[in-house]
Amino acid sequence: METELSKRLGVEHAIFGFTPFPAVAAAITRAGGFGVLGAVRYTAPGDLARDLDWMQDHTDGLPYGLDVVMPAKKVEGVTEADVEAMIPDGHRRFVAKVLAEHGVPPLADGEASGWRITGWMEEVARGQLDVAFDYPVKLLANALGPPPADVVDRAHRHGVLVAALAGSARHARRHAEAGIDIVVAQGYEAGGHTGEIASMVLTPEVVDAVAPLPVLAAGGIGSGEQIAAGLALGAQGVWLGSIWLTTTEADLHSRALTAKLLAAGSGDTVRSRALTGKPARQLRTEWTDAWDDPEGPGALPMPLQGLLVADAVSRIQKYEAEPLLGTPVGQIVGRMTAERPVREVFDDLTRGFERAVTRLDRIAKRSRS
Amino acid sequence: METELSKRLGVEHAIFGFTPFPAVAAAITRAGGFGVLGAVRYTAPGDLARDLDWMQDHTDGLPYGLDVVMPAKKVEGVTEADVEAMIPDGHRRFVAKVLAEHGVPPLADGEASGWRITGWMEEVARGQLDVAFDYPVKLLANALGPPPADVVDRAHRHGVLVAALAGSARHARRHAEAGIDIVVAQGYEAGGHTGEIASMVLTPEVVDAVAPLPVLAAGGIGSGEQIAAGLALGAQGVWLGSIWLTTTEADLHSRALTAKLLAAGSGDTVRSRALTGKPARQLRTEWTDAWDDPEGPGALPMPLQGLLVADAVSRIQKYEAEPLLGTPVGQIVGRMTAERPVREVFDDLTRGFERAVTRLDRIAKRSRS
Repeated sequence: METELSKRLGVEHAIFGFTPFPAVAAAITRAGGFGVLGAVRYTAPGDLARDLDWMQDHTDGLPYGLDVVMPAKKVEGVTEADVEAMIPDGHRRFVAKVLAEHGVPPLADGEASGWRITGWMEEVARGQLDVAFDYPVKLLANALGPPPADVVDRAHRHGVLVAALAGSARHARRHAEAGIDIVVAQGYEAGGHTGEIASMVLTPEVVDAVAPLPVLAAGGIGSGEQIAAGLALGAQGVWLGSIWLTTTEADLHSRALTAKLLAAGSGDTVRSRALTGKPARQLRTEWTDAWDDPEGPGALPMPLQGLLVADAVSRIQKYEAEPLLGTPVGQIVGRMTAERPVREVFDDLTRGFERAVTRLDRIAKRSRS
Repeated sequence: METELSKRLGVEHAIFGFTPFPAVAAAITRAGGFGVLGAVRYTAPGDLARDLDWMQDHTDGLPYGLDVVMPAKKVEGVTEADVEAMIPDGHRRFVAKVLAEHGVPPLADGEASGWRITGWMEEVARGQLDVAFDYPVKLLANALGPPPADVVDRAHRHGVLVAALAGSARHARRHAEAGIDIVVAQGYEAGGHTGEIASMVLTPEVVDAVAPLPVLAAGGIGSGEQIAAGLALGAQGVWLGSIWLTTTEADLHSRALTAKLLAAGSGDTVRSRALTGKPARQLRTEWTDAWDDPEGPGALPMPLQGLLVADAVSRIQKYEAEPLLGTPVGQIVGRMTAERPVREVFDDLTRGFERAVTRLDRIAKRSRS
């Protein structure tokens, strides 16, 4: 599966796999794809350095990337405490009420929420970058539009390509003007933050909007046939996130959550502001229902909502409060029905792609050479 | 573009074009596709017979189909007057208020709304069928799931294939069990009634759910590249509706509406219950905003909403009340930027498909034979 972009990055297949787990990212790279490690949960630079060391030892010199969450606009002088102070008491009481209704115990005294100081704080993301540029990372992706201009420049000086997610052609054009190298067109059906335009329509719109910049199709892709569809739409590669969540190398820290993912159908996700304050697709749970309930207080805007629910999310995960337990995931979750090694999933993708191209050749009445 | 289904129906290309306009349906068929005439607005059987006569004279003996709106479950003994009586006065006042705010005049005395007695009434649809079976219609499609069993049997006795739209794998399986021949997998991005699963995910789910029945991919398709994507996902053909609305053969009876369609972007549609009471994608207008407003009374369930707004929709169209003027259309509306003849649109589709297959062959490193 060779495109100009895959050649430029030196990967066999134009399959980009986003994952928060180093073992998954490394396995994607070893299988012939391009693993992208999500950095948002690395609040301590030393932890990121440790995992990038591990990646170096487990990728056979093959290329991989890093995904950070960095707002393009800097808000000067605002601390986490300032943001905390903006959260209404009524919302805090609502969180406590929902958790109490489900009997979710508090964290132990002094037990920090892994989510509390999140990577979307620019200083945290910059700390991650200081580490990352010491490693031969080939791609820096940013989930919230283009990173700040100095970060783009710094990446380019290190020979690192910069990618940014976009949910509309307008956003994609803005990203291109900010000097990024690759646009990830993230369709409505994708897990995590998404807009309302589905991949079938979004991908070619973004391709046309930013040409000749390469575009990756993201959202709804979990089979080789879907990869063929994304590439037919003009993308130079595909970006898959959800599908790796149920690989054997993934470590969700919760058997109950893995079981929920394996059982969920394509209709069991919801685009909800419950997680961060911006619409993000995730498993539909009693937690998302509570925030989406018109009778409830509703989610706060980003970044307030993320801070408000940080401890609660940790508690739900730690105690595996099943009805509340969720995760960002796309509509493709309906196809995630068994835990399998990354290599097996990956080989299915490339085989399915070949099958789809053979079928299209037949439909176009071309014999295979 | 040849699949088993296109061969079975005797068409050159597996492109199914749904349209309420005979001139468009005939032009699609003449171009090598399969034109499907929407029958919902033919309340008088004579009008349908007149237009099917015209179709016969303008399709050179090539195949075409008919699309009706027929609920599978019959509600015995319920008249239109019974349904009218179920509409709350508050909702009627809301309609009057919104129209008054925009200065929309009433219809002339005795002027019937073309929408008033709609084709979803089973007796109207059965009247259409009595006419249709006198013509060599090759396909009967139903927008509300499978038609009643006796209608499926009658179609099969006439050698007519039956298609039904589905927005989920579960619905598709139910349709297959009802004995239909083709499932149209209608994605979230489509115009008209849709579910929440996007085409990229829905198409292969439905293909697997009803195999070996053939599936048509619908939703988000308006280019040859999108056709290649739909077929890569396992469909045996594609079903396009929106793209024909701005062809020169289409007759929207409103230059203002055509202008709105040509100007709209992919983000200018909304999935709203304003039109029929069930979620249907359409242009977002001040009319849909009024019904989707949490402060308003909200849309009534189907079929009440359709009856409630029938006159209002006619008035909005007749007087071209621009801010309220809309139509069902999919997210592909962003690509409808010029009025063009059906033949030109169709040839672009087949050329774009060839281009996409050539590109995929290159990505798969196959040389073209």
